[in-house]
Amino acid sequence: MNFASDNVSPFCPEVLEALTKDALANAPAYGSDDISQKLDVAFSELFDKDVAVIPVATGTAANCISLSALVSPYGGVVCHHEAHINEDESTGVAFFTGGAKLLPMDGPAAKLEAGDLDAFISGLVDRGVHSVAPECVAITQATELGAVYTVDEVTAIGDVCRKHDLRLFMDGARFANAMAHLKCPPADITWKAGVDAISFGATKNGAMAVDAIVLFDTSLKARMEQARKRSGHLHSKHRYLATQLLAYIKDDVWLKNAAHANDAAQALADVLVSQGAELAHAAEGNELFVKVPPELAGKLRDAGLMFHGWPSLGADVYRFVAAWNTDIVQISKLKTTLG
Amino acid sequence: MNFASDNVSPFCPEVLEALTKDALANAPAYGSDDISQKLDVAFSELFDKDVAVIPVATGTAANCISLSALVSPYGGVVCHHEAHINEDESTGVAFFTGGAKLLPMDGPAAKLEAGDLDAFISGLVDRGVHSVAPECVAITQATELGAVYTVDEVTAIGDVCRKHDLRLFMDGARFANAMAHLKCPPADITWKAGVDAISFGATKNGAMAVDAIVLFDTSLKARMEQARKRSGHLHSKHRYLATQLLAYIKDDVWLKNAAHANDAAQALADVLVSQGAELAHAAEGNELFVKVPPELAGKLRDAGLMFHGWPSLGADVYRFVAAWNTDIVQISKLKTTLG
Amino acid sequence: MNFASDNVSPFCPEVLEALTKDALANAPAYGSDDISQKLDVAFSELFDKDVAVIPVATGTAANCISLSALVSPYGGVVCHHEAHINEDESTGVAFFTGGAKLLPMDGPAAKLEAGDLDAFISGLVDRGVHSVAPECVAITQATELGAVYTVDEVTAIGDVCRKHDLRLFMDGARFANAMAHLKCPPADITWKAGVDAISFGATKNGAMAVDAIVLFDTSLKARMEQARKRSGHLHSKHRYLATQLLAYIKDDVWLKNAAHANDAAQALADVLVSQGAELAHAAEGNELFVKVPPELAGKLRDAGLMFHGWPSLGADVYRFVAAWNTDIVQISKLKTTLG
Amino acid sequence: MNFASDNVSPFCPEVLEALTKDALANAPAYGSDDISQKLDVAFSELFDKDVAVIPVATGTAANCISLSALVSPYGGVVCHHEAHINEDESTGVAFFTGGAKLLPMDGPAAKLEAGDLDAFISGLVDRGVHSVAPECVAITQATELGAVYTVDEVTAIGDVCRKHDLRLFMDGARFANAMAHLKCPPADITWKAGVDAISFGATKNGAMAVDAIVLFDTSLKARMEQARKRSGHLHSKHRYLATQLLAYIKDDVWLKNAAHANDAAQALADVLVSQGAELAHAAEGNELFVKVPPELAGKLRDAGLMFHGWPSLGADVYRFVAAWNTDIVQISKLKTTLG
Repeated sequence: MNFASDNVSPFCPEVLEALTKDALANAPAYGSDDISQKLDVAFSELFDKDVAVIPVATGTAANCISLSALVSPYGGVVCHHEAHINEDESTGVAFFTGGAKLLPMDGPAAKLEAGDLDAFISGLVDRGVHSVAPECVAITQATELGAVYTVDEVTAIGDVCRKHDLRLFMDGARFANAMAHLKCPPADITWKAGVDAISFGATKNGAMAVDAIVLFDTSLKARMEQARKRSGHLHSKHRYLATQLLAYIKDDVWLKNAAHANDAAQALADVLVSQGAELAHAAEGNELFVKVPPELAGKLRDAGLMFHGWPSLGADVYRFVAAWNTDIVQISKLKTTLG
Repeated sequence: MNFASDNVSPFCPEVLEALTKDALANAPAYGSDDISQKLDVAFSELFDKDVAVIPVATGTAANCISLSALVSPYGGVVCHHEAHINEDESTGVAFFTGGAKLLPMDGPAAKLEAGDLDAFISGLVDRGVHSVAPECVAITQATELGAVYTVDEVTAIGDVCRKHDLRLFMDGARFANAMAHLKCPPADITWKAGVDAISFGATKNGAMAVDAIVLFDTSLKARMEQARKRSGHLHSKHRYLATQLLAYIKDDVWLKNAAHANDAAQALADVLVSQGAELAHAAEGNELFVKVPPELAGKLRDAGLMFHGWPSLGADVYRFVAAWNTDIVQISKLKTTLG
Repeated sequence: MNFASDNVSPFCPEVLEALTKDALANAPAYGSDDISQKLDVAFSELFDKDVAVIPVATGTAANCISLSALVSPYGGVVCHHEAHINEDESTGVAFFTGGAKLLPMDGPAAKLEAGDLDAFISGLVDRGVHSVAPECVAITQATELGAVYTVDEVTAIGDVCRKHDLRLFMDGARFANAMAHLKCPPADITWKAGVDAISFGATKNGAMAVDAIVLFDTSLKARMEQARKRSGHLHSKHRYLATQLLAYIKDDVWLKNAAHANDAAQALADVLVSQGAELAHAAEGNELFVKVPPELAGKLRDAGLMFHGWPSLGADVYRFVAAWNTDIVQISKLKTTLG
Repeated sequence: MNFASDNVSPFCPEVLEALTKDALANAPAYGSDDISQKLDVAFSELFDKDVAVIPVATGTAANCISLSALVSPYGGVVCHHEAHINEDESTGVAFFTGGAKLLPMDGPAAKLEAGDLDAFISGLVDRGVHSVAPECVAITQATELGAVYTVDEVTAIGDVCRKHDLRLFMDGARFANAMAHLKCPPADITWKAGVDAISFGATKNGAMAVDAIVLFDTSLKARMEQARKRSGHLHSKHRYLATQLLAYIKDDVWLKNAAHANDAAQALADVLVSQGAELAHAAEGNELFVKVPPELAGKLRDAGLMFHGWPSLGADVYRFVAAWNTDIVQISKLKTTLG
């Protein structure tokens, strides 16, 4: 079983079916087709607000294009030091924004806590044009360490942002997993909590290659569409991005996929803990960070499990990621295998 | 019939079948999977040389990432003023290269001619650090006006590049159409003619969303892979890019698709000319640029044809683009319809 | 005599005296000193409007920092192809703006003509996010070919800019020479004519190293000050930039220096024409562009004159530049020398 | 007495005299003049090695232009979190390098310690193209907290750099103060210790506005000269930068100025400590970081002293900076004043 990443999973039957159905006919290019035109309506319904949707093929593109419109070339983006934009997107943020600087801080399970955030921002020494002033806060939902922000937590962060006149961006590469855990309306934890834009991830959770930038502040749309084009992220056969997204959110496919992945992670957590492993923190989404004794780690590998170490949490800590297609029955059998 | 662009066509059955077959299983992410690992071998065979392949989802990405490794932030890229990088990629080249400047020149049917190119380069005033020195030449095969460079023509351009110590890049968004026309080995018109890297287009000719950067100078690979990642163009489910490309070049699908599109364009040209239209220049690929009398233009639209004006060639000049799925039978019936 | 450039001249006695006087005492850094604080007032008086002044050490910095606030990373700057920003500032504009593209056009004596400009802008094909839309027009006063825009000409250009919703920037590296020629109030040919910002040149005309960005739209100030700092153009001992500028505009030193240079150019023009040379166009500032027969060119060099060819105007065309310190008496003696 | 910064000091008599002498005659522009041509020779003698010198007007320019040639747009620069490039140069490093990221670490008195540096670099998780790999180490001599690296310390850092195949850059804004303290040959602590390039500061220590990039690896010269031009840092009247530098290093003016500043700082340290203040760490250059009891701070301000707080070292910690023109006699009188 492959727990190395949810990126190892294929795309799901619903997406395949939609792509197949959409494969036959001609259609206008670059997003002027009928399918692409449905995106804003579909996501406005999902988020209970008039939103603008800009689909791109990768999460890095969604994050960096979003930030390019939320921060100036002279500004800073406050984020957790474990944030994907800080750890896994090369120098993408500086590239897309024309120089903006990441201002990483700490927090439990890769979460920013509102009080700490307020203190961090207040503590930044303002040397005028010499120093980099924060202009945006970026949080990840679910976090890179598998934790899920509650509505209250994001709302409190939104309040801090308003207090300091900062934008709030949400990297939602695993937003579905967070929502499947929280079971609240998407509106409550996004624009109602003060979020300006979100990367609405689909690739890790059943799509082939599409993440959507969803803008709650639609005034950002024109600039982001320019940023998308000039960075090579505007697809000519745009409808295939739209097709994936529409199939992904139709009939709650996104939530069902995510719930499955979360359940699989929980099932695996139970097995691992029963074998003497220790969770670094509660498993809320589809990712587990687990302290695994060396002997057990060996047995897991012998049983065919694939997973990576996570050195920033310690030498014996590993990450296990479940996906929409993880076989839960097989997990349950693992207990027997491990003895 | 939609002749607005080859971008309006869907992906072809062979690509669909491959994607479907590849849709079921887990696989490592970011290009370390078995399918992605086949790319270099497959393209090395196609080009009769050890090449490195970097797939991305769009032509703009393929062009700009390529140029980011071929030119410094202080240099210039000589191209035709009709070049896609000059006319249709926003400020992408400056963005990816960190500032490099396009140095557009003229030429018939959007071709650079070697003699003119040599004169153009020699005529650039060298003011040292004050002026922008050319570091690369970029040509498009087939050109944006539907013409196809011969092997001799590209070889002559390659000689000019060597003389002036410049890199040579080929935008091959419609390379298939050019090759279907020329029927020569791909090697002859690329690395043997002095080309350092090519954007090997697939999206317009049967893929869903993939163009491949093919490096004949494989020393450029590491830097381009960094550029790809930090611009958000490294796909996590990388194998789906690879799958499309492998299906596209297998059994000459790419050439068959292109030959069909070229034939369709030729068939349409015959019809149009028979009705009194006039080709701006010979149709060699899948694009026609045609001077159409206003009355005929009206009749064509009445007959359901879609096509765009091309103002840079004159008020009554229109572009008609055929694709791999254009219905040639329907074109032949057009003659009757138009009377 | 050195007519190679006005950059070969030293700084003038008034600037030297001011620097000397200002050399002795301590003062706050980075522009918060008393001398720097006088700049806005002094230039507001000069331009008869509340302006903001941002001094930098070079013309390239003044131009590029200005444009960084006038155009987006996705936009275009219309300019003459002879413009300094197009020909002599490397890839500076793209660098400072984050990618903006120069859109060069033609015009007599390096001037943009309002009608041509309107037609040029209207003729740019708008392909939405694919193409680069103009956002700013940049003119040079006096032009790179030594011509001077009249108030009516700049006003007409300003009207075109308003019509198309574009910013208007003036590169005033030789603004003093233009004003000494026109003898009109500086207000008339700048903000009253629709100019948003000007590079007010001083270095070529008597300063050591300072050009001032003068903002008629003071809302641009904060962003430009950020751009200045992060590009390394904020001087710690800022007062020495201010000192130079204040001495330069006090008691009309700038206009006197420029008038002298213009007179010297005119005197040289008379000599050259009397010897059979031919002006490419009327000499209005301190620069001459002259068609010089080979024999005469040789005699001029023999007589110790230094000057450069200007290939874009033809094989036998040379540029002669006079400065604030050019010896007019020596020029008049030249007639005798040449015989 | 103004201890706010050494930037508040004027330029010194030797520089003034040289500028005055150089003020009279014409000379070629942009560095081709005789004075500018002397720079490489003069600094090669100073550093006992063939070096290339690129003068610019500010320390930020010197640092950022240097880094633009030492690190790729995808790489990282390891530095102390107190480093000027991290704290005081806005987003300059990302701007000039095209995106490179600062990787700040800690160390006593703003020094990097070789062992810590080695561990820090080794501890950076290498995620290939996803993560930012260090390509350069930047140290400041003297540090931003007034400490001075010994030859052994820099040599050890140089060894770490070689081990990890990294470039080594030295920000020498206060290199003179360090050398006046160390009294060793400049070669020993620069290229012999593994330094590739240094910002050789002059502005803070007696010049008007000039810092020199000194390249021990002269292969970097061409690229840096391009970077200088396109960022607007190539002065037309280049000789005035050269004049300042030559006067600054002639007859050890730079060392004498720095020794005076160091002595003044030491004298002030003695006074402050005698009054109950406490040095945060030993004063080695011209900067003191001192914990001052509130009552004493008030008395110092009453006595006319100007100085700033340094919050990163604690609430009651202040910075006092002496300069080449600080009045040591007045400092000695301070003891009496304070009683």
